[in-house]
Amino acid sequence: MYEPVFAPTPIQPLDTDVHGNAFFLKREDLLPFSFGGNKARIGLEYMRDLAARGCNHMVAYGNARSNLCRVLSNLCAGAGVPITILSPADDDGQRREAYNEKLCRSFGAQVVPCLKTGVAESVDTVMESIRQKGEKPYYIYGDRYGKGNEAIPTAAYVPVYDEIRAQGDYDVIALACGTGMTLAGLLCGSKLRGGSERIIGISVARDAENAKAHTLAYGNAWKKDLLCADDVEIIDDFRRVYGDYGEDVENTIREMMRLHGVPMDGTYVGKAYNGLRRIAEREEWQNKKVLFIHTGGTPLFFDAADRIL
Amino acid sequence: MYEPVFAPTPIQPLDTDVHGNAFFLKREDLLPFSFGGNKARIGLEYMRDLAARGCNHMVAYGNARSNLCRVLSNLCAGAGVPITILSPADDDGQRREAYNEKLCRSFGAQVVPCLKTGVAESVDTVMESIRQKGEKPYYIYGDRYGKGNEAIPTAAYVPVYDEIRAQGDYDVIALACGTGMTLAGLLCGSKLRGGSERIIGISVARDAENAKAHTLAYGNAWKKDLLCADDVEIIDDFRRVYGDYGEDVENTIREMMRLHGVPMDGTYVGKAYNGLRRIAEREEWQNKKVLFIHTGGTPLFFDAADRIL
Repeated sequence: MYEPVFAPTPIQPLDTDVHGNAFFLKREDLLPFSFGGNKARIGLEYMRDLAARGCNHMVAYGNARSNLCRVLSNLCAGAGVPITILSPADDDGQRREAYNEKLCRSFGAQVVPCLKTGVAESVDTVMESIRQKGEKPYYIYGDRYGKGNEAIPTAAYVPVYDEIRAQGDYDVIALACGTGMTLAGLLCGSKLRGGSERIIGISVARDAENAKAHTLAYGNAWKKDLLCADDVEIIDDFRRVYGDYGEDVENTIREMMRLHGVPMDGTYVGKAYNGLRRIAEREEWQNKKVLFIHTGGTPLFFDAADRIL
Repeated sequence: MYEPVFAPTPIQPLDTDVHGNAFFLKREDLLPFSFGGNKARIGLEYMRDLAARGCNHMVAYGNARSNLCRVLSNLCAGAGVPITILSPADDDGQRREAYNEKLCRSFGAQVVPCLKTGVAESVDTVMESIRQKGEKPYYIYGDRYGKGNEAIPTAAYVPVYDEIRAQGDYDVIALACGTGMTLAGLLCGSKLRGGSERIIGISVARDAENAKAHTLAYGNAWKKDLLCADDVEIIDDFRRVYGDYGEDVENTIREMMRLHGVPMDGTYVGKAYNGLRRIAEREEWQNKKVLFIHTGGTPLFFDAADRIL
């Protein structure tokens, strides 16, 4: 199997002084496989787990804009592993075109529409039909209810904490929090090393309580009882309905592209970065070194380019 | 002025054995500013030259798909320097939408349509109107005929030769050749260091003689009489009308994305990489270490995504 090799991604200073603090970006979007992003690392962990378990058919779940489904489909194409994606419609029942899904299809993924209300049944149906072809399916999220495989994606980001520490020390590390996988990995890394920085997950859709429960589940699946509730900080003031974003976020995206040449999408990275700047303002941060992790999503930037640019 | 800082871009092995040779990619497309590419380095040199000459209004020339115009507009937006772009229609007289031009407009560039047949007059008109506003214009290509500024872009790629040598030794270094700027810089770097590798420019549009003349002009403007005709190898068998490409190139682009997660466009990078593989085949290369320089163009990949994917 072809395995991309990831050198440490660059950290760049932002010359704009954000309310008297020094802001830095960790460019995970520049990971050199399939437009990069955190899901490039996480997808690779799922591929390794599939191989370790002797499976030969990847089953994923994600909508048309899913970065994880894009990366997994690309890894599967490179490895000659078939992949089936359960793809829910948006909350309004619509299916919208997106570059990520086009890429998935181009990579040979089989995209199966499903309902958000009947995921467990859809998983069963897809897994059974794969087994009947004599193949051994691997569902990335574990059982039919999406439980049991939380350790795998967490493992992708535990070593990234060390990577960051080798590049510099920061008072704050912040990132978009969707599922909580990436945050969980970094929190586990920090806990293991006795890190003293504040790590903030800026929730893009879930409320703080729900996001925290998921993050704890991911972290403690990787290492039992490593994280406790107090280790996890989620700020949910800037979330919106998944995929939605407002004028404030659009302005931030335009500004980051104009002034720094850095593309951000509105669903995850732009929303979280906009939130971070407002947190720095309302909490009146002073003289802090702040690292924001750019977790990728270049195809989503181009989805929205006509609207935002 | 905000100046992006460029660490060495990664070189990645391609696991596919191309006719018994080891192929590598230098990922200039991952330069961390404005979707990167060779024009990120070259645009930065033009910005420095503008500042050195005390100018305060950038004037560029390039069509809607120009990577250089995108990067320049982005650098100008970051630096607060106004930019005017002379934009010719395609050879068939049509103007097509492209993400690069949308980005230029979003960065605040003024895009002035012009005719390919009347560039000198259009340059005069634009320069004069800028002067009349009391600003000091800088035309990237020199005089009204596009002569006189060839040393600047060449300077961007002379140090990249040393960067490559510090990363490894190669029997062949190959890249797309449009204007010849990037090739000229690498050739100057190699000549200065006594490099023994074969450096091939794979012309995307010009015939070999024309492309060679331009490459020599760029190189020798940087350092007088450094390059002679025998130093410049251009292969023009794979060129097509600018912007056009065929099924062969499309297949290569799909394959590179599917198997390696690397996006390539059809106008420059995909066309040249496809050509390189066919050169290796027809010349029956054996056991060579071959470095192909991925010179960027991510927005062009998305322009063509609906067609190619």
